[in-house]
Amino acid sequence: MASGLVISVDGMGGDHAPDAVLDGIEIAARKSPGARFLIHGPAGRLTPMLETRPAAKAASEVRNAEKFVSMEVKPSQALRQGKGTSMWNALVSVEEGEAQACVSAGNTGALMAMAMMRLRRMEGVHRPALIASWPTAKGFAAVLDVGANVEADASQLVEFAIMGEAFHRAVRGSKRPTVGLLNVGSEDQKGHEEIRSAARLIREADLDLEFHGFVEGDDISKGTVDVVVTDGFTGNIAIKTAEGTARLVAGFLREALTGGPLARVGALLALPALRKLKERMDPRTVNGAVFLGLNGIVVKSHGGTDGEGYAAAIDVAIRMAKSHYREEVVANLARLSVASTLPPQAAAPGMS
Amino acid sequence: MASGLVISVDGMGGDHAPDAVLDGIEIAARKSPGARFLIHGPAGRLTPMLETRPAAKAASEVRNAEKFVSMEVKPSQALRQGKGTSMWNALVSVEEGEAQACVSAGNTGALMAMAMMRLRRMEGVHRPALIASWPTAKGFAAVLDVGANVEADASQLVEFAIMGEAFHRAVRGSKRPTVGLLNVGSEDQKGHEEIRSAARLIREADLDLEFHGFVEGDDISKGTVDVVVTDGFTGNIAIKTAEGTARLVAGFLREALTGGPLARVGALLALPALRKLKERMDPRTVNGAVFLGLNGIVVKSHGGTDGEGYAAAIDVAIRMAKSHYREEVVANLARLSVASTLPPQAAAPGMS
Repeated sequence: MASGLVISVDGMGGDHAPDAVLDGIEIAARKSPGARFLIHGPAGRLTPMLETRPAAKAASEVRNAEKFVSMEVKPSQALRQGKGTSMWNALVSVEEGEAQACVSAGNTGALMAMAMMRLRRMEGVHRPALIASWPTAKGFAAVLDVGANVEADASQLVEFAIMGEAFHRAVRGSKRPTVGLLNVGSEDQKGHEEIRSAARLIREADLDLEFHGFVEGDDISKGTVDVVVTDGFTGNIAIKTAEGTARLVAGFLREALTGGPLARVGALLALPALRKLKERMDPRTVNGAVFLGLNGIVVKSHGGTDGEGYAAAIDVAIRMAKSHYREEVVANLARLSVASTLPPQAAAPGMS
Repeated sequence: MASGLVISVDGMGGDHAPDAVLDGIEIAARKSPGARFLIHGPAGRLTPMLETRPAAKAASEVRNAEKFVSMEVKPSQALRQGKGTSMWNALVSVEEGEAQACVSAGNTGALMAMAMMRLRRMEGVHRPALIASWPTAKGFAAVLDVGANVEADASQLVEFAIMGEAFHRAVRGSKRPTVGLLNVGSEDQKGHEEIRSAARLIREADLDLEFHGFVEGDDISKGTVDVVVTDGFTGNIAIKTAEGTARLVAGFLREALTGGPLARVGALLALPALRKLKERMDPRTVNGAVFLGLNGIVVKSHGGTDGEGYAAAIDVAIRMAKSHYREEVVANLARLSVASTLPPQAAAPGMS
């Protein structure tokens, strides 16, 4: 394999694997001609499938792995029995430095457990977190944690802020992403103690990031900030609630526009516009959640996505791999640890 | 004032008070001819305004209150200085049995604090909760707590389930509302310990309610259950996230349909259908959050609503006042307290 950018792929993860995975690689390979791919999975099955996907074939190497992780298996079980599966081997390629990032559309719990075991936590990070992209009125926000943990204390929320900010810069190219803490009000005295402490900690630690303060649920879609920080329980509820709401509104719209002959003619005339709307709301464009805080980049694609969606997840992996994400996180974590070793009166002058 | 159904109204609460309040009473009085209204506020200002609102005039009595609670004041301040305001007096009408329910579009924190002080908690309820209606693919769901508390332990979540179930029956007329606990997965081992304990408690207490188990964020809009139970922090984030998402999609749709001449003609033809869609998503139809768990019914209207929206909040108050809400909650709370006094092996046979 040539030197340069290498992405390791779990060829058998996801509801439509391996077809959707290989379709995704075909699209990604055309879009990013410099990238190469290590595809883990049953070579006897995958290699012939590359014949109809010339760009993928030219950019890939298939690594044989006969076993794969099923969507139903529990994380603990996956850890015990997962060795040698396509998912496991895809992670090992990153662990051993053969690839800079790994993409899988497989079982989320299994992927997180295996990634933790093989790649381990970055120094200074206490809890890895899952970050997802979210379409907003202004572009895209990143929201974390969306489900890696069910709880987060103040210092973990601060770590999420640091990792999320670097992620947004890496993937969206924004120079100074703004960061907000998700809360039930924007006033200082609102919400849980952990969130209020996290806000104080960020302000006092002199981190190199643009902290906006608290944001509320409706601020996410407004695009009030680029990075929304919350615990994994709240983040998971928020993102799924938004998905459900978007689907509900789309369903209402469909019903309205097919409800009578005049509406149908109107919809027909407006079809190109409605297609553009659909594109804008397309979950595939925001596919690719990243498991942040490990010694290596792990991207989780939605299990039910197609080639286009899978290519978007690969694109996230490529952007992360090309960025200075790791260095930026390390630098900000160092600032944080300096702040937390200062005597309290220096760190919190208001309280002395 | 004649006997029968009486609703006490804070005439000066909300961004568009007193106009929107009186418009709301006018609409409600036409819709519910049996109901009477006590309007608290400056009589010199309100009484002349009733001249143009004949139905409201015929059904109402103005109770003079020169002071009112501003939208900016903090709950603690409102408690100290609130006596004699239109909001305070509206609550006192319920406390003294003159009215069966109270409606205000004023400062939420102040209303909750004053309502707690004047009406006090129902026996057996540890934490009152704010419940809101939510449009779904199947009709309407009720979600609580949406912000009265930032935390809830297992037994408080069970109380929310009991109150929410009785609320849904009272306001939506469903015979056996289904109840779900909001979580990050539907499997038994998912989520916080409090939520898992609450699920066990509901199953073991033999409550007279249809418990569905855990639901996820996207289940709310799907209408998977009629009543969604969660802590006030998560509920507030969920409802605001959904509002933000619905607004984003509506904004995208507007942009798409005004983006070109063909789309504009199409939108014009589909206008009646789009109007119906707008109606379906109209936040005014779900206006009227109820502060549950007090000795009296307190309905919080959205502060920015108009007459139509205010009338919807009054309608919620009327439905609650006419229902057996209180008796049902008392009966189920009694079942709960029996269950919690049983020895653990009897309450949790699986653990003996």
